[in-house]
Amino acid sequence: MPRALDVADLVARARRGEHRAVARLISLVESDTAAGRAHLREVAVALAPYTGRAHVVGLTGPPGVGKSTSTSALVAALRRQGRRVGVLAVDPSSPFSGGALLGDRVRMGEHATDDGVFIRSMASRGHLGGLAWSTPQALRVLDAAGCDVVLIETVGVGQSEIEVVALADTTVVLLAPGMGDGVQAAKAGILEVADVFAVNKADRAGAQRTVRDLEQAIAMAPEDPGGWRRPVIATVAVRGDGVDDLVAALDAHRVWLDGSGDRVRRRRARAAAEVEAITLEQVRRRIGDLRAAGALADRVASGELDPYRAADELLGTLGVGPGVAASG
Amino acid sequence: MPRALDVADLVARARRGEHRAVARLISLVESDTAAGRAHLREVAVALAPYTGRAHVVGLTGPPGVGKSTSTSALVAALRRQGRRVGVLAVDPSSPFSGGALLGDRVRMGEHATDDGVFIRSMASRGHLGGLAWSTPQALRVLDAAGCDVVLIETVGVGQSEIEVVALADTTVVLLAPGMGDGVQAAKAGILEVADVFAVNKADRAGAQRTVRDLEQAIAMAPEDPGGWRRPVIATVAVRGDGVDDLVAALDAHRVWLDGSGDRVRRRRARAAAEVEAITLEQVRRRIGDLRAAGALADRVASGELDPYRAADELLGTLGVGPGVAASG
Repeated sequence: MPRALDVADLVARARRGEHRAVARLISLVESDTAAGRAHLREVAVALAPYTGRAHVVGLTGPPGVGKSTSTSALVAALRRQGRRVGVLAVDPSSPFSGGALLGDRVRMGEHATDDGVFIRSMASRGHLGGLAWSTPQALRVLDAAGCDVVLIETVGVGQSEIEVVALADTTVVLLAPGMGDGVQAAKAGILEVADVFAVNKADRAGAQRTVRDLEQAIAMAPEDPGGWRRPVIATVAVRGDGVDDLVAALDAHRVWLDGSGDRVRRRRARAAAEVEAITLEQVRRRIGDLRAAGALADRVASGELDPYRAADELLGTLGVGPGVAASG
Repeated sequence: MPRALDVADLVARARRGEHRAVARLISLVESDTAAGRAHLREVAVALAPYTGRAHVVGLTGPPGVGKSTSTSALVAALRRQGRRVGVLAVDPSSPFSGGALLGDRVRMGEHATDDGVFIRSMASRGHLGGLAWSTPQALRVLDAAGCDVVLIETVGVGQSEIEVVALADTTVVLLAPGMGDGVQAAKAGILEVADVFAVNKADRAGAQRTVRDLEQAIAMAPEDPGGWRRPVIATVAVRGDGVDDLVAALDAHRVWLDGSGDRVRRRRARAAAEVEAITLEQVRRRIGDLRAAGALADRVASGELDPYRAADELLGTLGVGPGVAASG
């Protein structure tokens, strides 16, 4: 294996669809070692001209609705149409998700030998903000590799996952029949993040009612400024039923995004979030390097100093003026 | 209602155990309004001399193990011993958790009229890091209010929740029988965060096996440097069975923490995390105020600029030297 890393060559090979090159680039951009970080900028610069084309679709929903099965069924449907598909399965590193995640990956195995499918599990980098930082990078690799659609599937439904899903052009919220009052109570919150609803396991009792409840809630919600009316698609992902309808809904949303200018707005917001995350990560790393930070923490722990004054001192050491501190 | 806020008076009343004063102080420290922020420092300074006494206990575990019931049972057991108890129920603002959370609060209602119990739900502030930032403040209020024990109960089990639980002196991981292979697979991860295990619903089939499996895993894990051997307590929280044993295990861990010096080490780490979170929040807020940030995001969205160079420019605008940027 050559010692020197030829990023331009890797990007060229990734653009030709070479799986090893794609995997290598994603490993580079999610790497948390000094060696990996040294290449981050080079990779970002090399990828920039080839990005912005893929339709980024986020999938989220409560545990047990069949997120992984739905992702797999979407991949199959998109492949039948000859589209190249990337999948980022995002695991916020819950110590409890190990087993389920393993199961998910095994189920996705049917696509493992398909040259037009790129599957990658993303783990948190062990601190808040890690996913906000590394997911856009991986997205950019899959985009440059010519994926027409990139699916971001979250394992959980916490705050971190919502932020990851917010990276998408189109967000699909998956529900299932019989989830009862919890769904009722949370409806307002669900409506906020969804562009498309899928009611999976639609062969089960209560499916029609779940669809009807959602449609009623949508009808009562304020109309989207651009006029997008969120569709509710019934699916049985394990059999592939309704999945072509779901793909059609995703395509319709993409057409709407382009026409309304919302796509540009969302991508700007995504870029702003990414730049903020990189900036904060740089500041965080700098704090970690500062001896002063440890000494301040000791003084806060002993009650000698309050944490706000400690933060002021830290901002001063970092070079950020008191103008910031004064606002908090 | 008086316009001027007398923080010293509020703190004095909170220290006498006045519930309204405690609630008001927590509202102040978790406030995200300019008016609230203006008082944050004042509150932190006023509380500092009265903190560091409470035993902070974090409770986490997969959905369905009975976290809320266990918290409630622990409160009852601690109250029988005459101890003052605070509860922070942390909800990472999943749009799906509304229903369950409501249920939890209703169940905790049995303690609502007890003067020696302070219960507060904490929500995320809508961005990653928000809980890391506001939870320690609320903790400090309950500590100053004379709580002997503060229980931090997380609703979910994502990365954010783990970070919140990491604030604790003692972390309890709750499990239940029949959770099967997922638990097996994740054992290493669970062992890492737990100081004490509780196997709840111990009247159900498979409880003894879950206890035995855990004890085996603990026996095989490398011994804690300070010699703490993680106990496994069987409970039936809904009936209160085993809950006194759980309290005894928490007390034993506290004694161990004091003896080994680990308590000081943990509190330093907690202070360091808090100072870092406040610092990053200040930087984040400053970025939000910068016009330059929006313009940079536009250039990244259009592919004209890569996000790393954009972050460099942003760090420059903030006043943070290029030394930071060069390391990324």
